[in-house]
Amino acid sequence: MFPLPHPMRVALDAARDAAAAGEVPVGAVVVHSGEIVAVAANAPRQLCDPTAHAEMLAIRAAAQLLGRDRLEDCDLWVTLEPCAMCAGAIAHARIARLYYAADDAKGGAVEHGPRFFTQPTCHHRPELFAGIGAGEAAALLRDFFAARR
Amino acid sequence: MFPLPHPMRVALDAARDAAAAGEVPVGAVVVHSGEIVAVAANAPRQLCDPTAHAEMLAIRAAAQLLGRDRLEDCDLWVTLEPCAMCAGAIAHARIARLYYAADDAKGGAVEHGPRFFTQPTCHHRPELFAGIGAGEAAALLRDFFAARR
Repeated sequence: MFPLPHPMRVALDAARDAAAAGEVPVGAVVVHSGEIVAVAANAPRQLCDPTAHAEMLAIRAAAQLLGRDRLEDCDLWVTLEPCAMCAGAIAHARIARLYYAADDAKGGAVEHGPRFFTQPTCHHRPELFAGIGAGEAAALLRDFFAARR
Repeated sequence: MFPLPHPMRVALDAARDAAAAGEVPVGAVVVHSGEIVAVAANAPRQLCDPTAHAEMLAIRAAAQLLGRDRLEDCDLWVTLEPCAMCAGAIAHARIARLYYAADDAKGGAVEHGPRFFTQPTCHHRPELFAGIGAGEAAALLRDFFAARR
């Protein structure tokens, strides 16, 4: 086993925190100039906020910290293929590179469903890197849903 | 001219507030049990938040007020066809009915681009009503962009 890149390691730890809090285990990290500036765990139930996916919380936190609504010099690392909402937010934020771990055939919007970044109505496409940490990210999700059945 | 339904009137007023603040003029309203429980104007620049579209802010405010992350007994009124991010949030929030005014060929995700609610990866489709107040909503946008050229 090769070690995972540090941001994905941190995102997976955040996903584990989400599971411990009873939320679907997804974690996300924003990196700016080589440093992690935001870490978030999926938290819609805890926050009473249907938009509170890990990616959204991490993007919002990074934008607050940097004091602007465009993050063209930032990368996003997330443990699961983003949904349509999050893919849309990634485009609005002008994220430079998107790294995601597990794919999501049921709700993903990058390789599945709307394939949002290929749409003519998508105004920014990040560079895409998929699969890093996919085994661990998928196992977290599998264990979470198995325990709830 | 017939008068507009009250929620769309309020959403259009919010769109006008957005324009006055230098933001793309879009407004949104959430209605619960016949009452307006959230009103929001598009505000990504003011809030340093790329996710701060009117729909997102209205949904988040309504969810906070009602203390839950699902709004299956709520309707959303918005002055512009929602983008992919907002359409995704509408599905996550389980909004019952979506009323929007102007269509958006460049960035919309309901009738255009991903047509998100028709995707198999979309897990909730609101009832859809388009066009109410479209003329006024489109004029607000046209005037806003004309003034910036």
